[in-house]
Amino acid sequence: MTTKIDIQSTARMLLEKDNILILCHKNPDGDTLGSAAALAHALAGIGKKAYVSCHNRIPAKYDYLNIPLVEEGAEIDFVVSVDVAGINLLGDSLMEYAHKINLCIDHHGSNGEYAEYLCLKADYPAAAQLMYEVLCEMGCEITPHIADCLYTGILTDTGCFKYSSTTPLTHIIGARLMELGAQHTLLVEKFFMSKTRKAVQLERYMMNNLEYYFDDRCALLVLTREAILDIQPDPTDLDGLSSMPRDFEGVDISILIRPLREEGSYKLSIRTGETVDACAIASALGGGGHIRAAGCEVIGSIETVKKAILREVENTLCQ
Amino acid sequence: MTTKIDIQSTARMLLEKDNILILCHKNPDGDTLGSAAALAHALAGIGKKAYVSCHNRIPAKYDYLNIPLVEEGAEIDFVVSVDVAGINLLGDSLMEYAHKINLCIDHHGSNGEYAEYLCLKADYPAAAQLMYEVLCEMGCEITPHIADCLYTGILTDTGCFKYSSTTPLTHIIGARLMELGAQHTLLVEKFFMSKTRKAVQLERYMMNNLEYYFDDRCALLVLTREAILDIQPDPTDLDGLSSMPRDFEGVDISILIRPLREEGSYKLSIRTGETVDACAIASALGGGGHIRAAGCEVIGSIETVKKAILREVENTLCQ
Repeated sequence: MTTKIDIQSTARMLLEKDNILILCHKNPDGDTLGSAAALAHALAGIGKKAYVSCHNRIPAKYDYLNIPLVEEGAEIDFVVSVDVAGINLLGDSLMEYAHKINLCIDHHGSNGEYAEYLCLKADYPAAAQLMYEVLCEMGCEITPHIADCLYTGILTDTGCFKYSSTTPLTHIIGARLMELGAQHTLLVEKFFMSKTRKAVQLERYMMNNLEYYFDDRCALLVLTREAILDIQPDPTDLDGLSSMPRDFEGVDISILIRPLREEGSYKLSIRTGETVDACAIASALGGGGHIRAAGCEVIGSIETVKKAILREVENTLCQ
Repeated sequence: MTTKIDIQSTARMLLEKDNILILCHKNPDGDTLGSAAALAHALAGIGKKAYVSCHNRIPAKYDYLNIPLVEEGAEIDFVVSVDVAGINLLGDSLMEYAHKINLCIDHHGSNGEYAEYLCLKADYPAAAQLMYEVLCEMGCEITPHIADCLYTGILTDTGCFKYSSTTPLTHIIGARLMELGAQHTLLVEKFFMSKTRKAVQLERYMMNNLEYYFDDRCALLVLTREAILDIQPDPTDLDGLSSMPRDFEGVDISILIRPLREEGSYKLSIRTGETVDACAIASALGGGGHIRAAGCEVIGSIETVKKAILREVENTLCQ
């Protein structure tokens, strides 16, 4: 049974605890890592022991966040998940905590309510926006480095203030974080203006292999195992790839299908424009997410998987 | 002799005048048009006659700004230029006003000081940010439509809050305009999330034909006459294309070579990162421009033109 709590109660709770473990979601992005890093640094700043853990190795591009990873044998008295919508998003290596999460700080409307306490702002575009308010409420000093961590979360989860989830409050907190020392130019260049060679190769692959369906309203890309072996993309590059065709004129739904480690199993990323509910499509195939960005895992051959997702897309577009 | 005035004096001056003509720069963009539209609508809102003029026909994508264009024989008592850095940027058809501009509202540090009075904020990323402050100072009501006009200027001149010119104040005014009714999602989709089919085809061509030189620090694309006939791109698409490879990791110089109408004659667009002077390279071949974006026209075969530009690039990189 999950108890929903507000920002004030969340702040009070964190101030009372020590030896805090902060959990990120698997395949971590800028928001889960930036928010976790900000919380860990802020807790350290008020004399508490705080560590971060993630199922995956932290991608090198996030090294600057200086995340204090948990060490073997650390004493843990309180477990907080950040930007983790559901238990299954923790990843296998964190499953030991599945039923031991004291507090979840999240912005996903689809949150699975798995934690003892939940601080949720489903109308916030990034967990980092909520974390900023929690840290302010706690009276923590937002150092320039913590501002960088939080700005990272907001930048990456809003596509640099582009997505429709951006609100006036997002801009106001963005302004405040810049005033506190967040390095706007450096972070924007890092995440939006320096495409790696692999990302360029992936984009080229996408341009040459994109399939169109339903009067070109649906763009679908199958990233084959061969292409992955050839390009060896970073997981972060794949996130960008799935949303790219959504920006093509006339495209309402963009789908990326990629093989999972187990043969005959695929991960689907669904990105939609204003008129289509990505989460509804993903949910029909056992997944979930946000209204504009969702995902699911489907077992089968590439042909049956394509057929399954295109059937759901057709159902949605012909409603 | 130009007199520099502050926002308060600018507001007072505008409140005293009537029959106001607002001039945009040629090849108009979202900032000059959005700022001019906002001023015209705000002046109309307080009972004044105000019209806009531009050398070029206003591109259809800006129709929603509802710009009140000046009509033949309109009485004009006061002329304001908006976002126009120099007289030569008015365009031939507005040259009659060259020495009759009473007030210039601008954000270009390079402003030519051609107007009687100049209200300049060189540290603002967009003229629209300044126009917002002028309209507030005038006590004009910022209607939802005026907010859309101003948000358009800020969005397009900051690349959606991406460029390094973005400051905390930009975010704060962005928030205020959203609160006043600016349609963030609609405008962002219009300008940043709707690549035309032709733009996508061009990008695909670029991805498949880009050549790399000098340890991949220089990316060069030859857009052939055949490709142009095949894709029939809009001129605005070509501007975007030339700067795209500059955002590839490691690329300091991006060059686009395209044929001019006359056989054996080529237009070169040069875009550079922080460390390379594009204008110096273009100047060596008889062209010119800005430090990060310049161009020139070269006569010869495609082989000799490539050789000529690569020689200049080599000179610059090996300095």
